[in-house]
Amino acid sequence: QHSSKYILLWSAEIGNSCRIFIFGCVHRGRPEPLDLHLGMFLPTLLNQSSPAQLEAFFMPAWNLEIIGTYAQTEMGHGTHIRGLETTATYDPSTQEFVLNSPTISSIKWWPGGLGKTSNHAIVLAQLYTQGKCHGLHAFITPIRCMKTHMPLPGVVVGDIGPKFGFDEVDNGYLKLENVRIPRENMLMKYAKVEPDGTYVKPPSDKLTYGTMVFIRSMIVGESARALSKSCTIAIRYSAVRHQSELRPGEPEPQILDYQAQQYKLFPLLATAYAFHFVGQYMSKTYHRISGDINQGDFSELPELHALSAGLKAFTTWVANAGIEVCRMSCGGHGYSRCSSLPDIYVTFTPTCTYEGENTVMMLQTARYLVKSYKQARAGQQLTGIVSYLNEPQSRIQPHSVSSRPTVININDLASLVEAYKFRAAKLVEMAAKNLQAELQHSKSNEDAWNNNSIDLVRASDAHCHYVVVKLFAAKLSEIGDTAVHSVLSTLALLYALHGVALSSGDFLQAGLLTVPQLAQISQRLKGLLSELRPNAVALVDAFDYRDEMLNSALGRYDGNVYEHMFEWAKRSPLNQTEVHESHHKYLKPLRSKL
Amino acid sequence: QHSSKYILLWSAEIGNSCRIFIFGCVHRGRPEPLDLHLGMFLPTLLNQSSPAQLEAFFMPAWNLEIIGTYAQTEMGHGTHIRGLETTATYDPSTQEFVLNSPTISSIKWWPGGLGKTSNHAIVLAQLYTQGKCHGLHAFITPIRCMKTHMPLPGVVVGDIGPKFGFDEVDNGYLKLENVRIPRENMLMKYAKVEPDGTYVKPPSDKLTYGTMVFIRSMIVGESARALSKSCTIAIRYSAVRHQSELRPGEPEPQILDYQAQQYKLFPLLATAYAFHFVGQYMSKTYHRISGDINQGDFSELPELHALSAGLKAFTTWVANAGIEVCRMSCGGHGYSRCSSLPDIYVTFTPTCTYEGENTVMMLQTARYLVKSYKQARAGQQLTGIVSYLNEPQSRIQPHSVSSRPTVININDLASLVEAYKFRAAKLVEMAAKNLQAELQHSKSNEDAWNNNSIDLVRASDAHCHYVVVKLFAAKLSEIGDTAVHSVLSTLALLYALHGVALSSGDFLQAGLLTVPQLAQISQRLKGLLSELRPNAVALVDAFDYRDEMLNSALGRYDGNVYEHMFEWAKRSPLNQTEVHESHHKYLKPLRSKL
Repeated sequence: QHSSKYILLWSAEIGNSCRIFIFGCVHRGRPEPLDLHLGMFLPTLLNQSSPAQLEAFFMPAWNLEIIGTYAQTEMGHGTHIRGLETTATYDPSTQEFVLNSPTISSIKWWPGGLGKTSNHAIVLAQLYTQGKCHGLHAFITPIRCMKTHMPLPGVVVGDIGPKFGFDEVDNGYLKLENVRIPRENMLMKYAKVEPDGTYVKPPSDKLTYGTMVFIRSMIVGESARALSKSCTIAIRYSAVRHQSELRPGEPEPQILDYQAQQYKLFPLLATAYAFHFVGQYMSKTYHRISGDINQGDFSELPELHALSAGLKAFTTWVANAGIEVCRMSCGGHGYSRCSSLPDIYVTFTPTCTYEGENTVMMLQTARYLVKSYKQARAGQQLTGIVSYLNEPQSRIQPHSVSSRPTVININDLASLVEAYKFRAAKLVEMAAKNLQAELQHSKSNEDAWNNNSIDLVRASDAHCHYVVVKLFAAKLSEIGDTAVHSVLSTLALLYALHGVALSSGDFLQAGLLTVPQLAQISQRLKGLLSELRPNAVALVDAFDYRDEMLNSALGRYDGNVYEHMFEWAKRSPLNQTEVHESHHKYLKPLRSKL
Repeated sequence: QHSSKYILLWSAEIGNSCRIFIFGCVHRGRPEPLDLHLGMFLPTLLNQSSPAQLEAFFMPAWNLEIIGTYAQTEMGHGTHIRGLETTATYDPSTQEFVLNSPTISSIKWWPGGLGKTSNHAIVLAQLYTQGKCHGLHAFITPIRCMKTHMPLPGVVVGDIGPKFGFDEVDNGYLKLENVRIPRENMLMKYAKVEPDGTYVKPPSDKLTYGTMVFIRSMIVGESARALSKSCTIAIRYSAVRHQSELRPGEPEPQILDYQAQQYKLFPLLATAYAFHFVGQYMSKTYHRISGDINQGDFSELPELHALSAGLKAFTTWVANAGIEVCRMSCGGHGYSRCSSLPDIYVTFTPTCTYEGENTVMMLQTARYLVKSYKQARAGQQLTGIVSYLNEPQSRIQPHSVSSRPTVININDLASLVEAYKFRAAKLVEMAAKNLQAELQHSKSNEDAWNNNSIDLVRASDAHCHYVVVKLFAAKLSEIGDTAVHSVLSTLALLYALHGVALSSGDFLQAGLLTVPQLAQISQRLKGLLSELRPNAVALVDAFDYRDEMLNSALGRYDGNVYEHMFEWAKRSPLNQTEVHESHHKYLKPLRSKL
């Protein structure tokens, strides 16, 4: 929730009629101090204010008189938001809420723009009124003086210090000591506290649920963008860079001609395409389902919730590791910020943690899968993406290899999609059965769940992998141009086979593969790399990132890498003077002491 | 070679008698501008100077009048040093060398301390004399005026700009335009150029070879240190952090009690111990073999060379990914530099690239393995660590699972060591056979080699993995204390089994494992995690890093994480004033324009 990243793109509704999307930002792809104001503060005002609150707060916020952030995470609590400790206690005598940070771990921590930029924060706090706690609610809390910008009495606010990245953002802390705000500052579109302190429950909590799903779905697209940018830089550079001798006496080859380099980059290229198509699907599905939701039909939301949680984790983990593979495939120069790869990494890597920590996300998806599996076993007919769990159990039991032919044809994408499906079914079944077995020994359901987390995460991972392969294959049928279809088919086959090779144990275990096929897959992968080599640069050019977007000397479209590295280096801050001050300040005095 | 990292530890010989080790550094574990002076310039002077050169240069350098660096890498050439383009052409009329950077790609790039700090550089250049090129030689080149510190005529020098890390170091560029240096500035302990331009060959090149092996061996220990520091931070923090509900109504558990968290961290803890023992072995072996070398016995050097190359790559890749797993296992706070994990990562990750790019290193090891395999097939009896390739071929052929009992007993470490050995043998054999088969289709040996790089890297990886498991198991026999022996045995078993689970396809393919054993391994791994849980904090405490070394609010020995995060944040540069200048400078003017 405290990412300043997703907020480049936000959606808000006023009275279910007007939908606003803001896509632009000043520095493309870079975080900024106002991201939380634009991406969370304004939309939350729009979504959760009463009409009177909208009247009072929206225009000043739109005009940047009020600059706000969204203060949810605390030092001691992130993904598990029910555990937040900040309190807002209603005082009917003055009709005010009194906000407090009762412990050190309750200090708000991480909200973007909180440290120095914002004069307001929407503070998530446990609401107490008439002696009872009613759980988390949101409070518009002034934190700095509108004239002097000094912190208000009772407000301890500041920057949380240097981070891996996000240098541009003053992620902040906020400690509240008996800070009083008017009753009208609680966001009251749904829940309310009446002047006498009576609490009025919200009619439904499903709209907040929808926002969370929306943001996680968007992150899938973000994974595709980060990885496709990284592939563009690494593959273009690998076509420019020459190194070593392949054949004695001949010129040094492009490093893209090395099979080991292709093996690093082409599966990632295929992954970037796969995630791009999955991102499109998630976006389309979200908008379709949110149409249904507006008409009161919530039936597809649980599936989308489970899918968005798992795919958020699956794609961010893969993209995160992939960016670093791209960076290191550029050798030493990848380590220079002129490559842009270090910046892409430090800006992207928080997606593995925010909007729901990835392992927690995988376990949420697993909960849905196990529940669906049980329903199917109980005779319910599942629909949607988990319908494969309907298949009769015998189909997905392990077979000794000799007793039936394998299902995989390693040259046929449809057959591979089937294999991924059976693998997922097998791993979901194993996790559910282990859970069942564990229940005999464990003190509680919760202990049994915890004692099977490894299996559960593995099942989710296999489910997500299946979805990605399936959507990639489905996309091919939409492509009319035969040349484009051909090269994308090669990419899809590479994506699918590479995944089988990496998790071959799973496929062997599920009886979907024979041992001799492993060697065939290795050989086929080498063939696919060679097939892709001539198209590799065109395939990254097709992502269509302008040089200004990539901001990378290594990834330039024109290939003039070395000239631009040199120009870039000359502009280094240390080069502003020929003799740096450190020479006079440190080295000369040190020398005189020896 | 341009790492400023290893240089904390350097070894140099004066006349084979006096050996100097410098272990200390001003800021523990952090790079510094003088690292290259201390770690490369001084040792190279000591190792490669003639007595007259030592006389002239060493004391001024020791007293920091001369501050030097080691300028090898060029913009266009890193690991493949034969491709370096800088030239040093001897002019007998003035008895000088004329140094030039003939192309933009020949500009020296990356040497630490080159940009702003150094006034001299040892420049690696292609030596031309009497119209002939004699390959790379080293030249002491003054680059800045000893009085004013201004660049000398013909010298274009500066900082290469911001990087992922190493902010403290002015990695630099150096362009040489007809820079003339006296003949006496070529390092002439071995090769020489006489006044008339006659070139005198060096008697042997094996000493340089030795230095390279030494540094790579040391990097293995560095992998252990970086990973053990990261594990210390993440495991201590996971014992302090409480999150979510495991059992309803009970307090939030320590996150170290979650199986998913244990599964992230305990295999890495086991790996840190494994690499620690491998590091000790490499250091001991290096010193034993370099003793032999001093007595003219080079027989073990090729094996050590192959082993140090492969293990450098194997351990740095694993540690590199492991540091990031540790960071992300700390949730959002891992992203703050108060955790120290971002700094550990950006300082460590260059080890994957420098001192020989990892994939190139793996292929060097593969070359030794394939050569050894062929020797064994030709009837030669191999000794040392590759002696497993002597085993009769039938032993290492795949068997159908039913035809013989599997060799693995998953509870017996010795049996697992055997399995890793047979897996390595199998993959070396496959790579060698594929290479042989490819030779029928390929234009040349080199093409065949390139077209099998994936298999070759995989074989090297399996070989290194075997060595690590074997050395870990061997270490256990040295441990007398039964309690320590017991917990380290558990760690060793976890390390070995976790590796089998991750590469289960290999073990199944080699007929070393049956499909039903996969499920047994999964269950056994869960058991090992529980067994280790009570000892996890003690096992990281045993690495014995003082708080000053870790420099991490999350990894503190006393566990007072939140208090110290808050103290650390208050000292953020942005908090020097309550109202940051950006408020007046940017926000107010922006607001007035709306």
